[in-house]
Amino acid sequence: MNFEKILNERIELVNERLKAYLKPQYPEVIYEAMGYSVFAGGKRLRPLLLLGACEAAGGDLEEALGFACAIEMIHTYTLINDDLPAMDNDDFRRGKPTCHKAFSEDIAILAGDGLLNLGFETMLSDAVSKGDLKYTKAALTVGELCGVKGTIGGQVVDLLSEEKKADEETLLYIHKAKTSALIQAALKAGAIIGGADEKTLSEFDEIGYKLGIAFQIKDDILDITSTTEVLGKPVGSDDKNGKSTYVSVFGFEKANEDYLKLSREVCELLDKFGEKGAFLRTYAEKLIDRVN
Amino acid sequence: MNFEKILNERIELVNERLKAYLKPQYPEVIYEAMGYSVFAGGKRLRPLLLLGACEAAGGDLEEALGFACAIEMIHTYTLINDDLPAMDNDDFRRGKPTCHKAFSEDIAILAGDGLLNLGFETMLSDAVSKGDLKYTKAALTVGELCGVKGTIGGQVVDLLSEEKKADEETLLYIHKAKTSALIQAALKAGAIIGGADEKTLSEFDEIGYKLGIAFQIKDDILDITSTTEVLGKPVGSDDKNGKSTYVSVFGFEKANEDYLKLSREVCELLDKFGEKGAFLRTYAEKLIDRVN
Repeated sequence: MNFEKILNERIELVNERLKAYLKPQYPEVIYEAMGYSVFAGGKRLRPLLLLGACEAAGGDLEEALGFACAIEMIHTYTLINDDLPAMDNDDFRRGKPTCHKAFSEDIAILAGDGLLNLGFETMLSDAVSKGDLKYTKAALTVGELCGVKGTIGGQVVDLLSEEKKADEETLLYIHKAKTSALIQAALKAGAIIGGADEKTLSEFDEIGYKLGIAFQIKDDILDITSTTEVLGKPVGSDDKNGKSTYVSVFGFEKANEDYLKLSREVCELLDKFGEKGAFLRTYAEKLIDRVN
Repeated sequence: MNFEKILNERIELVNERLKAYLKPQYPEVIYEAMGYSVFAGGKRLRPLLLLGACEAAGGDLEEALGFACAIEMIHTYTLINDDLPAMDNDDFRRGKPTCHKAFSEDIAILAGDGLLNLGFETMLSDAVSKGDLKYTKAALTVGELCGVKGTIGGQVVDLLSEEKKADEETLLYIHKAKTSALIQAALKAGAIIGGADEKTLSEFDEIGYKLGIAFQIKDDILDITSTTEVLGKPVGSDDKNGKSTYVSVFGFEKANEDYLKLSREVCELLDKFGEKGAFLRTYAEKLIDRVN
């Protein structure tokens, strides 16, 4: 398998389809604002996981492409919102002005709503045109994991925990809801479209949870051990912002142990899918081992 | 038909179900903020239209109750957003502090997202549990009409038109997208669940469009001709806020003529449904003839 070649082809597939969904029409500014944030340099992590899970479950990638784009729209709306003045009040993301800086705050809020809504429209449109209830089930899975019981709830608890040290339970809730939930959504939706049975779905639920937590611990570790040059953002920013992290709550040693244990378990779970799961396994491994 | 009795029974049905959907769980504050705005005194207009359309199309009300609640959640999220400091910056709605005043701006934004998401979750959950693709189709119809091609697009154009006189085309776009779209969504989703054929659906599309515009013209006329006491808010506020209205763009005489013509057409279209459409017809008539 030429992993890098397949990776780039899939990113290209997703980007082309996203461009089609976001083609400006009246009133243009809202499409421009949505497109600005979607094309501000995302790695397409969640779409790639969704496509990989569909493939691992035995499905056809083309069938899952709409959902792959939908999950990226939903992920992007969470970033636009997190950056708003009333939330983290960030002027830059990935070195570019945030949506409310490049446009205005009202347009950024509407672009966020627009992307969340368009994510659901895209999934529902596929579900209706393909006429198979499995797409509706996949959309419900995404909806539940990105709502108040998932991503939104995670953001609420994260806001409430600012400027005070979170306890272990609270920190795990935030990581699970803010990071794992959307990864679980991507994997499970892809697997459902790929035709996975209930047992396989619960495996993907576990993979998504563990991959999300491992990913987040790695983030917290890199914030301490990396250099500003490699990371592309200031190191030690979590500490400076008074943000509780896996490392500050559990200590460096346990963080590193848990990270290694979760990573090993994710890879073992993915091994079961054999050749069909080869892309997803390699991609997950690279996510876990990343240096920035 | 004892209209008032049926009306109150249906409102009660919707409220009870909404309470169940919004029952607080961890993290409680987001449920409290969503519930605060949903129960801040809405007339349940869109749920009643949705239930009435389901009935007119020959369906069972109970089948449409989840969708009736979903459309109210989506309507409420648009109100929370419209009131935000970055939008209309309103401190009060229906005499009560707006969501960002009663809670905080970050929680209000997340409560808005939460309600939009929960609206889709509710529709998708019904679609999966009932196992009938017509619910997925109804959810797509709602999604399309409340997205960037509908409600959100309308809000964008409304913001862009502030402080300048809108031309006829722009004003009609705003009224269609901001007011008619969600009414069309309610009627069409209800009709789809009720089993309507394509021809009936396009009639409901027309009814929704005309009812929405008539409703909005009435709003604009009342803002001039009513009294603060009857209206429950200051008269002449549109003019004071530099807001273009149907009356300021088309003149009072044409506004009144169009209002009467559209109202007549809505009633004629609803007459076709006979006894099954009796509730919906009476309700639409009362909406059009309202004094506040």
